Amino acid sequence: MDTPCLMIDVGVAERNIARFQVLAEKAGLATRPHVKTHKMPYFAHLQCKAGAIGITCQKIGEAEIMADAGIGDILITYNIVGEEKLKRLVALAKRCRLSVTCDSLSVAEGLSQRFAQASMPLTVLVECDTGAGRCGVRTPQEAAALAAAIADLPGLTFGGLMTYPPMVGADRVDGWLRAAVDQLGEVGLPVPVVSTGGTPNLDELGAFSSATEHRAGTYIFNDRSLIARGACSVSDCAAVVVATVVSRPAPGRAIIDAGSKALSSDTLGLEGFGLIREAPDAQIVALSEEHGILDISASQWDPRIGERITIVPNHVCVVVNLIGEAYLRHADGRIELMPVAAKQQIR
Amino acid sequence: MDTPCLMIDVGVAERNIARFQVLAEKAGLATRPHVKTHKMPYFAHLQCKAGAIGITCQKIGEAEIMADAGIGDILITYNIVGEEKLKRLVALAKRCRLSVTCDSLSVAEGLSQRFAQASMPLTVLVECDTGAGRCGVRTPQEAAALAAAIADLPGLTFGGLMTYPPMVGADRVDGWLRAAVDQLGEVGLPVPVVSTGGTPNLDELGAFSSATEHRAGTYIFNDRSLIARGACSVSDCAAVVVATVVSRPAPGRAIIDAGSKALSSDTLGLEGFGLIREAPDAQIVALSEEHGILDISASQWDPRIGERITIVPNHVCVVVNLIGEAYLRHADGRIELMPVAAKQQIR
Repeated sequence: MDTPCLMIDVGVAERNIARFQVLAEKAGLATRPHVKTHKMPYFAHLQCKAGAIGITCQKIGEAEIMADAGIGDILITYNIVGEEKLKRLVALAKRCRLSVTCDSLSVAEGLSQRFAQASMPLTVLVECDTGAGRCGVRTPQEAAALAAAIADLPGLTFGGLMTYPPMVGADRVDGWLRAAVDQLGEVGLPVPVVSTGGTPNLDELGAFSSATEHRAGTYIFNDRSLIARGACSVSDCAAVVVATVVSRPAPGRAIIDAGSKALSSDTLGLEGFGLIREAPDAQIVALSEEHGILDISASQWDPRIGERITIVPNHVCVVVNLIGEAYLRHADGRIELMPVAAKQQIR
Repeated sequence: MDTPCLMIDVGVAERNIARFQVLAEKAGLATRPHVKTHKMPYFAHLQCKAGAIGITCQKIGEAEIMADAGIGDILITYNIVGEEKLKRLVALAKRCRLSVTCDSLSVAEGLSQRFAQASMPLTVLVECDTGAGRCGVRTPQEAAALAAAIADLPGLTFGGLMTYPPMVGADRVDGWLRAAVDQLGEVGLPVPVVSTGGTPNLDELGAFSSATEHRAGTYIFNDRSLIARGACSVSDCAAVVVATVVSRPAPGRAIIDAGSKALSSDTLGLEGFGLIREAPDAQIVALSEEHGILDISASQWDPRIGERITIVPNHVCVVVNLIGEAYLRHADGRIELMPVAAKQQIR
């Protein structure tokens, strides 16, 4: 095992998987974990075995890898646009129970044109912007109108409502969704699925009274951003980057062999680029591509060249994708090198 | 061709390669391009054909790919530490003319232990911190002392001085290097190579009076950070990310299918996450993993869903590594899909 590399504690990941399952069941929700965090069929199967009804993917490339690995129920929470992707979507729909989301008539019409000729209709959920300002229709009225349009379009089945990210408070999200469900009820359209998402809100799942399922991704490994939000502790973080100290060029400064091509430049609003478990008071103050620059002036830690450290990354999802392979540490101590199967799926 | 993807204009890259060669020759310097930007043997061969004396790599994995592809002269500008990497370094030294850098006796001793038993000595340059505060010995005196130690260690040959990054002004860098060369002269140690680096300083290469070669990497493709520094114009940027508009959820907002897993979160001090060539007054204000969020409220541009755009990334080196394959557009209009061969070399 050489550095930089990614090390995943399978026992911690399993504990995180079980916790999500318990919290969701307590709230009366099904779980549909988002695989963008791990991109590995191994972990998707663990999630399904623990009770997930299916998985969430963010692009067709991820979904193709997961369907090939035998995952049977996949929701792609993305507007699928363009001839190439629509062709792949039709092929994918033959290999698993597939659903997608959309937030405009334009995207729905593109899906309809392709699936009108397919053997099976495609299930399409309406993406709802409940306050985050990314994708999604902006009012319950718009949601109802788009749902009705989907229900009318050939080749499509209206599948329900989806929202992400829910950074505005579960109560407000739930109020929005409930209003949309009511609107749809008035026009006689049943809403089979209401899908919420996110890891930071796992403790408030009970507030999603209108939801039927919850999608969380980062919870399986956790990271420094979730520690900062109070969503987990260091010991709940299953994935760390292992790095080696390669230089001690000046007092108070150490250099490691993990830079932006291993840790990524994602800060998610935090200071620094990761948490050093062996020296939490040392700061990763800057990254170049293959160097991490550590300010250790406020720390008693005095590392020698060649010393190894483990880093909880700011944002584990992008780090797994970047590094592209992981050492899995199993409960029995066995270490297994596993490729991140879906990392090369840029599309 | 589907999106998101990376498109490289080979003609523009060739023009950039030729320009570096001309500027270096005018300054009396050899060129040793840094391949971390492209990670593709195809471009390394173009650089060598244009007159480069060899290439620079930042890690062994890159160097192995380049040696396998027939590149004959490789400098790895990195402290190589640890048994695994030293083993690979010995094997690599049999396949090309190899040199490395180091900034401490500890690293030099590690190299020596391995290469004392090898058939050929390893050439080792001293990394000098001429003001950037990353790796490197901090004074010309320390440089001379480490050089003398390297010359004395079995299995090693002292190869010269290396510095990066030279953000403090070429004159100051040159003063530092000249002092070190003088110190070494006093103890009778010749300095065969003085290697400077960087793209932003290509117009001041003449100031490096003590240098023998220059390493530049980003110059081959250029990027938004170099436009911001006045080092190039948009038309000098050879590599763009092609993305598709997938949502128009609100007036003044558009969403594209390139997020932080395509464009990276590198800002290099800039506002926003890339320059949209078709609408330079639109801002890529935020990224999530698979979404780019555009503020188009100050722009006349009113894109439809499905419209394609081309983005000059903030930092092209990390984007090439992330996307992992590139469409090359040749001068005759031919488009060729090429893997980024060294992208999977995390070590």
